[in-house]
Amino acid sequence: MRQAGRYLPEYQETRKKAGGFLDLCKNRELACEVTLQPLRRFDLDAAIIFSDILTIPDAMGLGLSFGEGEGPKIERPVRSESDIEKLFVPDPSDKLRYVIDTVSLIRSELDGKVPLIGFSGSPWTLATYIVEGGSSKDYHYVKGMMYENPGALHRLLDILAQSVVAYLNAQIEAGAQAVMIFDTWGGVLSPQTYHSFSLDYMRQILSGLRREYEGQTIPVILFTKGGAQWIESIADSGCDAVGLDWTIDIDEAKRRIGDRVALQGNLDPCLLYASPETIREAARDVISRFGPGPGHVFNLGHGIHQTVDPERLEILVDAVHEFGRDIRE
Amino acid sequence: MRQAGRYLPEYQETRKKAGGFLDLCKNRELACEVTLQPLRRFDLDAAIIFSDILTIPDAMGLGLSFGEGEGPKIERPVRSESDIEKLFVPDPSDKLRYVIDTVSLIRSELDGKVPLIGFSGSPWTLATYIVEGGSSKDYHYVKGMMYENPGALHRLLDILAQSVVAYLNAQIEAGAQAVMIFDTWGGVLSPQTYHSFSLDYMRQILSGLRREYEGQTIPVILFTKGGAQWIESIADSGCDAVGLDWTIDIDEAKRRIGDRVALQGNLDPCLLYASPETIREAARDVISRFGPGPGHVFNLGHGIHQTVDPERLEILVDAVHEFGRDIRE
Repeated sequence: MRQAGRYLPEYQETRKKAGGFLDLCKNRELACEVTLQPLRRFDLDAAIIFSDILTIPDAMGLGLSFGEGEGPKIERPVRSESDIEKLFVPDPSDKLRYVIDTVSLIRSELDGKVPLIGFSGSPWTLATYIVEGGSSKDYHYVKGMMYENPGALHRLLDILAQSVVAYLNAQIEAGAQAVMIFDTWGGVLSPQTYHSFSLDYMRQILSGLRREYEGQTIPVILFTKGGAQWIESIADSGCDAVGLDWTIDIDEAKRRIGDRVALQGNLDPCLLYASPETIREAARDVISRFGPGPGHVFNLGHGIHQTVDPERLEILVDAVHEFGRDIRE
Repeated sequence: MRQAGRYLPEYQETRKKAGGFLDLCKNRELACEVTLQPLRRFDLDAAIIFSDILTIPDAMGLGLSFGEGEGPKIERPVRSESDIEKLFVPDPSDKLRYVIDTVSLIRSELDGKVPLIGFSGSPWTLATYIVEGGSSKDYHYVKGMMYENPGALHRLLDILAQSVVAYLNAQIEAGAQAVMIFDTWGGVLSPQTYHSFSLDYMRQILSGLRREYEGQTIPVILFTKGGAQWIESIADSGCDAVGLDWTIDIDEAKRRIGDRVALQGNLDPCLLYASPETIREAARDVISRFGPGPGHVFNLGHGIHQTVDPERLEILVDAVHEFGRDIRE
């Protein structure tokens, strides 16, 4: 999940230099700088590029903005068949060039110290923002389209899946050594609609991605927030790892999925508001629930909050290494 | 779930007469009027009192308001042990008198035509609003308290559980023939914290409620939005019915729970944006998944949206009766 962010004073300073949030994403040097900041503070095992899931809708010309203290806003939401007809798959070497260049720059700056993870939003999650015009409480427009005109939504999702394939492949070719697909809003769907409007398009992406590049395997992690009920299908999608939020215990997930894929997760980010001892206990609990053996990527169950004290994250990172070593021994 | 609301023009008119939303809740005659409005339009099998889940925090003197087009706001959020020490269990015959009187009035106006359902928010859900000061995206304060000072949160939840018992018993004595507990935010918890910070307090309520009144059984329905993973424990809590959102198929719920409790649900409210034929199909699907036999209360998986066309709801209600009859025959 997101490593850089407003909880770090050095991030706040760099962001000020850039202007707004989107300016920061689009400034290669500064986006690289904020990507590296958490790695200077914490003993992390991987870097994740600093970017936003809405770069694709932005590259489609839909007009993306972030008001101060507000969520994202899409100026020209896509609500009709004719809106969808006008959409195109953005060429990553054109309007998404800034992300690709940032990936190259970070990879080169990392100099092999830790691997670099790229990411994208899932087609369904991107569609929620594109159709709603921003964040939503009830998904009125996008679910309205899903139930009233499913064919139109399928066309939109297909364009988005193609866009994600091109985008992630470009990230891989620029140096991303693993990629993650964030399906932040898959959990608001019913079992049937989750499978046909979200997971099927993540499958489509999986079959289009470069799973090997320059002789190295490129693992793909799928994460559906609120998707604990469907982890078996997610694990069967062809991905290499399943991201877990905190609503399922990792031992239960392992029992249900077996070891055919790795598991990533799954500490509630709110645990970072607790005392050092509680944080350490919680890390130990997740690690011991997973147990010994390979295939566990320790992670928060969602992005880190802006109000977290960075020292608490340091306690967590160190505890993960300590208990991780213990359990391997 | 909520039957009355902004999707009905007659509701909008009555609300204007009352002033704000909270004024409407507190005006017995007008709250009774809006409760009855959906029953005049649709062939419904039960009435649910028009009220809000935040009447208890309001009666605790925490200062509740609803800005136009905004969510609820608690003026004096409860964030410390000393804030919690000051709280008390509101006497339903005092500051909640208006709800109790409204229940009596509705019951008398219904004149036995359909049963009347009362309700309350769950202790955990009430605590989220009380501690956050309103709605929340990340539950920073309340989960912070949960992890940092669990004893304090347990004291708060205990006071809330006692308050809900007194409040629902007063509704039952005033004429509510079934009661529902809305745990709108239980689904943001982890398995362990759901059980100890939400379900345990709903259990406490269940053991304090009048389950029989004037020779009649008073069924209690528990509903945790996003709680599909935990329906077995919910069904084992001692409730009479489990409310389901749309993230689980009702046949799967029945398979997991058996017939020891009734099931309520579970159509995605967004289906009311679809065409009449799709709405009918969806109703038929839920009913046939449940199958013949008693113990199914057809319902939406959450409250009706304000932008729904009332005619669509009429199509749904009529379809439920038609297919309900079919499957019983």
